[in-house]
Parts: sequence; C-alpha cells; structure tokens
Amino acid sequence: MTYGPAPLDALSALLGARCATGESVLDQHGRDEGYTSPARPEAVLFPESTAEVSEILRLCHAARCPVIPFGVGSSLEGHVVPAHGGVALDMMRMNKVLAVNDADLDAVAQPGVTRTELNARLRDTGLMFTVDPGADASLGGMAATRASGTNTVRYGTIRDNILALEVVLADGRVIRTGSRARKSATGYDLTRLMIGSEGTLGVITELTVKLWGIPEKISSAVCGFPTVEAAVDTVILAIQSGLPMARIELLDEVQMGGMNLYNPDMQLAEVPTLFLEFHGTEAGVAEQVESFREIAEEMGGSDFAWATKMEERNRLWKARHDAYYAGKALRPGAEGMVTDTCVPISALAEAIRRTKERIAASGLIAPLVGHVGDGNFHLLILVDPADPGDVERGKRLAGEVNEIALSLGGTVSGEHGVGTGKLRYLEAEHGAAYAVMAELKQALDPRGILNPGKLVTV
Amino acid sequence: MTYGPAPLDALSALLGARCATGESVLDQHGRDEGYTSPARPEAVLFPESTAEVSEILRLCHAARCPVIPFGVGSSLEGHVVPAHGGVALDMMRMNKVLAVNDADLDAVAQPGVTRTELNARLRDTGLMFTVDPGADASLGGMAATRASGTNTVRYGTIRDNILALEVVLADGRVIRTGSRARKSATGYDLTRLMIGSEGTLGVITELTVKLWGIPEKISSAVCGFPTVEAAVDTVILAIQSGLPMARIELLDEVQMGGMNLYNPDMQLAEVPTLFLEFHGTEAGVAEQVESFREIAEEMGGSDFAWATKMEERNRLWKARHDAYYAGKALRPGAEGMVTDTCVPISALAEAIRRTKERIAASGLIAPLVGHVGDGNFHLLILVDPADPGDVERGKRLAGEVNEIALSLGGTVSGEHGVGTGKLRYLEAEHGAAYAVMAELKQALDPRGILNPGKLVTV
Ligand SMILES: Cc1cc2nc3c(=O)[nH]c(=O)nc-3n(C[C@H](O)[C@H](O)[C@H](O)COP(=O)(O)OP(=O)(O)OC[C@H]3O[C@@H](n4cnc5c(N)ncnc54)[C@H](O)[C@@H]3O)c2cc1C
Ligand SMILES: Cc1cc2nc3c(=O)[nH]c(=O)nc-3n(C[C@H](O)[C@H](O)[C@H](O)COP(=O)(O)OP(=O)(O)OC[C@H]3O[C@@H](n4cnc5c(N)ncnc54)[C@H](O)[C@@H]3O)c2cc1C
Repeated sequence: MTYGPAPLDALSALLGARCATGESVLDQHGRDEGYTSPARPEAVLFPESTAEVSEILRLCHAARCPVIPFGVGSSLEGHVVPAHGGVALDMMRMNKVLAVNDADLDAVAQPGVTRTELNARLRDTGLMFTVDPGADASLGGMAATRASGTNTVRYGTIRDNILALEVVLADGRVIRTGSRARKSATGYDLTRLMIGSEGTLGVITELTVKLWGIPEKISSAVCGFPTVEAAVDTVILAIQSGLPMARIELLDEVQMGGMNLYNPDMQLAEVPTLFLEFHGTEAGVAEQVESFREIAEEMGGSDFAWATKMEERNRLWKARHDAYYAGKALRPGAEGMVTDTCVPISALAEAIRRTKERIAASGLIAPLVGHVGDGNFHLLILVDPADPGDVERGKRLAGEVNEIALSLGGTVSGEHGVGTGKLRYLEAEHGAAYAVMAELKQALDPRGILNPGKLVTV
Repeated sequence: MTYGPAPLDALSALLGARCATGESVLDQHGRDEGYTSPARPEAVLFPESTAEVSEILRLCHAARCPVIPFGVGSSLEGHVVPAHGGVALDMMRMNKVLAVNDADLDAVAQPGVTRTELNARLRDTGLMFTVDPGADASLGGMAATRASGTNTVRYGTIRDNILALEVVLADGRVIRTGSRARKSATGYDLTRLMIGSEGTLGVITELTVKLWGIPEKISSAVCGFPTVEAAVDTVILAIQSGLPMARIELLDEVQMGGMNLYNPDMQLAEVPTLFLEFHGTEAGVAEQVESFREIAEEMGGSDFAWATKMEERNRLWKARHDAYYAGKALRPGAEGMVTDTCVPISALAEAIRRTKERIAASGLIAPLVGHVGDGNFHLLILVDPADPGDVERGKRLAGEVNEIALSLGGTVSGEHGVGTGKLRYLEAEHGAAYAVMAELKQALDPRGILNPGKLVTV
C-alpha cells in the first residue's frame, strides 16, 4: 500500500483550529499506554459531528492519507501509533449522551463519552453501564478494542452490550448497524464486525449501549488464600457451580505488595487475594455469599473483609482499577509490558502455574492480576527500558505467556486487542481465518487508509 | 451472476449414493416450512465430513454451481429453496456430538445435531443447551438463521451461545473462528459474521456452543389477562424492573382458541395468556414469583395455574412449541404466513395495538404469539392458498406489520431471518448498510455460489 501526505489545506479549511499541528498535541497523539515506540501524526483532527468525520474521510480517502481514530489513548498495544503516518482523528469532542431510554434499558451516546461520564449521567435513573476497563476509556475506544472489565463475568463484554452503531466507512459513507430492538435476524452482523476492529474498518460516531438495573443489594469482599492454586480453584468451582458472581478478580501476592505500596490506606495481607462482588436481592446475595463462602473455606480462604457501604466498595474497586499503577510501584522507573491471555476456565490453573514458572525463570518482577472468572489474566512485566537485557527478557517472558495460552486452546488477548504488539501471533491463533480477515479489510477499505498496520496487514 | 450446471459426475464419484437425484428427495429439499414456491435442486448431497464439504465446494466453485446448505428445512422464508438451481447440501449426516466439556460449560458438535438431540446427550450432566426454536432445528440451521426461542430473554439468542465455528468457505477453504476461551479481542469477529448469514457466506461444519447449569428450581405457570394490553403491560413492567424471567411468552385470545383445539387436554380460558417460567434457587424463584404476581395482579392477571412437576412443565412447553400447528387448526386447509417483527420493549404495546387494528381491517384470522420479553411477536396469518384475494390480503397484512415495526425503530425479523421472503424490506431497514452487506458477500463468495438469491443480492 502506498500512502499520500495529509491534505492539510482542505482539512484546515474544514476544521480551522481543530486541525492542529502543534508539537505537544502531535506528541500526545503519537503513543498510547503501551510499550510501542511513538511516532507523530502529521496533524490531529478534532471533529464535532458525523458529517465532519465523513468529510474528513472523503478527503483522506481521495489523498490516500492514513486516518487513525483516537479515543483517550489508553490502549496497550500501540493501537493509536501512526505506523504509516497520516492524521490522528481525536473523537473526544463528540462527547454527548444523546438519549437515555430508561424504559428500554439503553442509551445512545457519541464515541467520546467515557464510561464514568456515562455512569455519571445515569445517576438518579437506577441504571448502570457495566463495561469497566481499568482506564476511563471512551465508548468508541472500548467498542473498537472489544473491551471488557471486572464485571464481564456477569454482564458481558462491550460486544454483548452494544445494540447499534453509526459508523463512517473509509470512503466517507455513513452507515447505521443494528437497531434498538433487542434482537434481529436480518442480515450480516455489521455491529459485531465493527466491534474489535480497532479503527481499521470504520470510525464509530455513535453507539447504542445496553444498560442494567442497579441491583437492590451489592456486597463486595476481599478474601486471601494460602496459594494462587487455591484461589484459582475457588474461582473455577464458583463458575462451574453456576454462582452468578458479579465480579471475581485475582491479584497475586506480588501484585498485593504493589497495592499496599500504592494505596497507603489499604494494607492487606500480601497473599493471593480475590476481590469479589455479589449482585441481587437481599436474600439472593445472602445465598450467593453463603455458597461462595463454603467453596472458599474448603480451599483455605481466610477471613473475608466485607465492604457493603458504597464508599468502601468504591474505594475497593478504585484500587482494583488502579492495579496497573500499583504494580508499577514495585519497581520505580520501570516500564510495564502487559500480557492479556485468556483460556477456557478448566485450563486456568495450568496456565497460571506454567506462567509463574516462566516468571521465576526470567528473574523479573511481574505481578499477576486478572478477570479470572472469564479465564483472563494479565502480567505486568516490569523492565528497565535502559537495560537491553532486561527488555529482551521481558519480551521473551511475554512471548512464553502467549504460547502457553495458545497451547491450552486460548487467545493471546482477552480484551486489550492486537494493535501492532500482537500482530505476530494472529496467524498462529487464527490459522487460515487470518487471511479471511485481510479479505474483509480489503473489501471495506481497499486503499488501506484506516489505521494501517494494525490488527491485519494488507 | 451466471451459474453453471452441477458437476454431477465428479460429485457422484466423490459421494456415490450420497449424491442423490431421486424425485422425492429432490422434492423434500425444494422447500421449507414457509410460504414460498418450491423449486427442485439438481441433486441432494449428503456429506459426512468437513473434508467432503470442502471438496464439494471446490468442485461447485469451479463449476459455478449454486450450493444451498440444508438443515432440517424448518425455516420460514424460503431460505432453502434453490432460487438459481444448483445442489442442496444436506448436513444431517454430520450429526455427532464431538465433546461435552462440562468443566467449561461448553460442547462441540456437528451441524446436523438438533437441539433436542444435544439436550438428550446432556442428560445426566446437569447442563442444558438453551436455544429452542419451535421446530427441532439443526444447530447449523439455527446458527445460520441467528435463531432464538422462548428462553432467549434470559439466556440469549444462538448468537450469544456460540463460542467458535468451523466453516467451509465458497472456494473450499476450511477456517476456524473463535476458540473455547470465553472472550477474545484478537481480530474481526468472523464467528458473528457467519451467524445469521443464512448459508450465503460459508457452510458451518462444527460448532462450539455454550451450556448452562440446570437451575436448582424451575417453576412454570400460565396466567390469563382481561386484555392483550394488560398482558403486554405486565411483560413490560417485569422486564423493566429487572426480573430475571427465564421465559415470558404471550399467546393472544385467538391463539388460545387454537391451543384448545389442538391440545384436547389443555382447555384453558380463551383470553390473552402469558406462559411463564422462573429459574433459580428455591428462595430466588419464590422471590421472583412473588414480584411477578404483584405486577400481574395489578394488571388484572387472573389466577395462576402452576406447573412445577417436570412432566407438567414439559407438557406446557411442548404445547407452546407447537403453537404454529395449533394456530393452523383454527382454519383447516389454510396456509400460514408467519410474521416475525421485533421492537424496543417500550414500543411493544403500541406495535401490538396497531397490529391488531390491521388484523381486524383485513378480515383474516391471524393468531398472535411471541417472545414478548424480547419485544418479538409473530402473527400466523391464515389464508386459503386457492383464493387469490385471500392470499393478497394476507400479504398486505404481513407488509403492514413489517411497516409498523420499522416505524417504531424495530426489525422485520427477530429470529426467522430473511431468505427470499423478506428481501424487499432490507433496504428500508438497513439503508446504506445493506450495500455493505453485498460488498462482504462479494469479498467472501465472488462467484455467488452460496445460497444465491437469499439475504443479499449481488
Ligand atoms: C491502566 C489500564 C487498565 C486497563 N484495563 C483494561 C481492562 O480492564 N479491560 C480492557 O478491555 N482494557 C483495558 N485497558 C486497555 C484500554 O483501556 C482499552 O483498550 C480501551 O478500550 C481503549 O479505549 P480508548 O478510549 O483509550 O481508545 P484508544 O486507546 O484511543 O484507541 C484504541 C483503539 O480504538 C480505535 N478507536 C478509538 N476510538 C474509535 C472510534 N470512535 N471509532 C473507531 N475506532 C476507534 C483506535 O484507533 C485504536 O485502534 C487498560 C489500559 C490501562 C492503561
Ligand atoms: C413450527 C415452527 C416454529 C418455529 N419457531 C422458531 C422460533 O421460535 N425461533 C426461531 O428462531 N425460529 C423458529 N422457526 C424457524 C426455524 O425453525 C429456524 O429458522 C431454524 O433455525 C432453522 O433451522 P433448520 O435446521 O431447519 O435450517 P434450514 O431451514 O434447513 O436452513 C435454514 C438456513 O440455514 C442455512 N443452513 C442450514 N444449515 C447450515 C449449515 N450447516 N451451514 C450454513 N448454513 C446452513 C440454510 O441454507 C438456510 O439458509 C420455527 C419454524 C417452525 C416451522
């Protein structure tokens, strides 16, 4: 694919100062939170409407200029780094909640709304939007990366929580996929095709998302275990016995050390720990807690620390969402390489056992934390970026963790996505299907201008 | 698109007697349960392995011969009628359950396994496969039509219950989509692209489906209402209040007349009736029943008739699954035209009110039954096929029902799909997105041999 320079005159005429080329704004849009070398875009565009996005794409399509959609830039695999130049399309000025349909348990919003902004807007409705990656990501970014979070085990990933999208295609055409009806059997599932496409098939300009009623009763708890195996076996049993856990998160003993450093008011035992939450009616939650306690005690789980008040619960989950930064506190100045494998739940104990072996062999510090109810866990591999040996060991360890997941029938990314960081595993994971992805890319974006070099190469 | 004749010599050499051309087998594969004129395929092929399916497609691709995948032929929109000739690919000899992974709550099966066969195989595991269209459909057909059923309101459609597929593409390539991990963010969602594609993008040769634990306690009930409005308002309130109903089905007074005719042991009041089911723990079900009863009584719901024993429950749901045949009993000799609209739940009462008005204006008998918890309902419009006026009125009524759904932000098919019967509405429902579907078809099946003339035209 050959690319042309950005049509800056036309873009400036369209957007005025919202076509920005200042150094600091270019730098801000040249990297994400991942371990990928940054690269500056030629310009950063700040559209305020679907019509503007459409016109931008029309111009860039004609000029064969790459366009890289940009949310809050919290992705972890170089997703937003302009690998082939072009312009960054910052979607954060399209940040309106357009409708809250409480009678239908859905909301319509622009892509620049973040998950906490949407939930703030829902205050007083008794409803919640559930998908909660650690970062306060944009709805557009979450859809584009097929994000998930701590309560996916109960409420699903973003894929399960989107009813409809408005999308601008590479050539500027605007389409609507899906509807506010809860199900439909008319035609190809373009909504799901766009979800997880990482900005390579279209720019999402509007989303209709599912909402859920805030349960009558919520109880959160933490529970320590003698070993990681005991904690993982507890998770597996709870899931297999059909307990409708709302959240079940593992933090290993290394990660708990980081939590205590980062959250001075926390000070929990530095043992493998589950962070838990139960949703339901008063009686329902009591039943769930009782069933869970039986399983946990059998596995040697120690005393539960309960958080039933809203402030305590918020503190607990805030700490969990900050786990990335807490992990980094274990080695000041280090960079973090984050893994994100996901395996069938029956393979989780084995995956973690082998992973821990590889960490020990690497000699690196690599706290483990994860949405274990889904079979998904992360390492935060801490490396000194100035030490090539360290970086090399980190990369090798990340590779080994990915191989472990594939050998157990899993995936190299449960939620973070591919970007450029995981490109090299897609052939191994998908086999002949990977070529089919390239054929779809070719069909919808024949000039390859949408976030080129990510997810699929054409 | 121009098509060639079936490469019968090569197909016979490959399949022997499993390349059949007898008249009765051709007739059986020239129609489905819908109101579409039949047409004979040139031959019916009965593959027994993925390798055979791949070789068949290779041959037919080279010969530009249409291939129409065929499950049990229970679809309702002419899905399996060979609109452009070619061969029927009957998948029912690929009928093995390959694995039941009870620890992961999933199963791997070939496409010719039916939903009741899979559940029979699960007996003694404490697990169930939940998607239950009225017909005993094949897993392949259910996936290809994006089917759903009575408990979709709780457990989701087939889309939500498939983890992975094996698919043979138009040119014979075999791909695997997805994995047994519960979530993944690596690449385009080919699984969901195939689900609902009605045999036009690939032939499904293996499915990995989700299973669910059979709940500790199940209670079913029927409850009559003074008016359809009262029954519908009860549904809307129950859904909006977050009651985790396992089943909530509406049968109107006309349909209840048919039920009594068809099921002599039933004899329920011929009033709008909800068929209900609650799943959970003992205490949980008791709570749900109590909450539901409060809502229903406020709306004038009459005494509940309870079925807690397994045999009673099975009898109840057997009757519901036979609703199509019960409806037909209202006008012996008549053909049924089935509508399948789905709207946001807040629009359901209005959709049904307007629909009832149009039925009255048509002068036809058209019982109403539906998965109302999803906003989805069917009319069975009974027409005398020998009376052109009747047929004309039936088609007009069906068209009006579809227009009503579209005007309320809904879809012309909640679950039955498009086939040829609903083709003419897709442009209105999807707008510019419909052209994108054709582009995808073009990319994956450039010779247009897979079930041509259905869902999308290229
Ligand atoms: C501390 C931390 C914790 C995290 N925890 C989680 C977690 O628990 N779960 C999880 O899933 N992820 C997690 N992540 C990763 C990240 O937050 C998610 O991938 C998130 O969904 C990215 O959203 P964003 O708004 O930052 O998108 P960006 O990073 O800006 O963009 C991500 C991708 O989406 C594309 N994109 C953005 N907006 C649009 C649009 N409108 N249309 C089309 N494409 C678009 C971009 O081109 C890019 O390819 C975490 C990250 C950090 C730093
Ligand atoms: C009485 C009655 C009640 C019904 N109730 C419901 C209901 O409640 N919910 C619902 O969703 N539907 C319902 N239906 C419609 C029908 O049962 C479903 O659409 C069902 O999923 C079709 O499955 P099948 O095996 O009969 O497929 P078929 O009718 O044989 O084929 C359907 C479509 O799938 C394609 N196909 C079949 N197998 C494959 C394969 N292996 N690979 C690729 N494509 C394939 C065919 O080409 C065709 O386009 C009902 C039908 C009847 C007659």
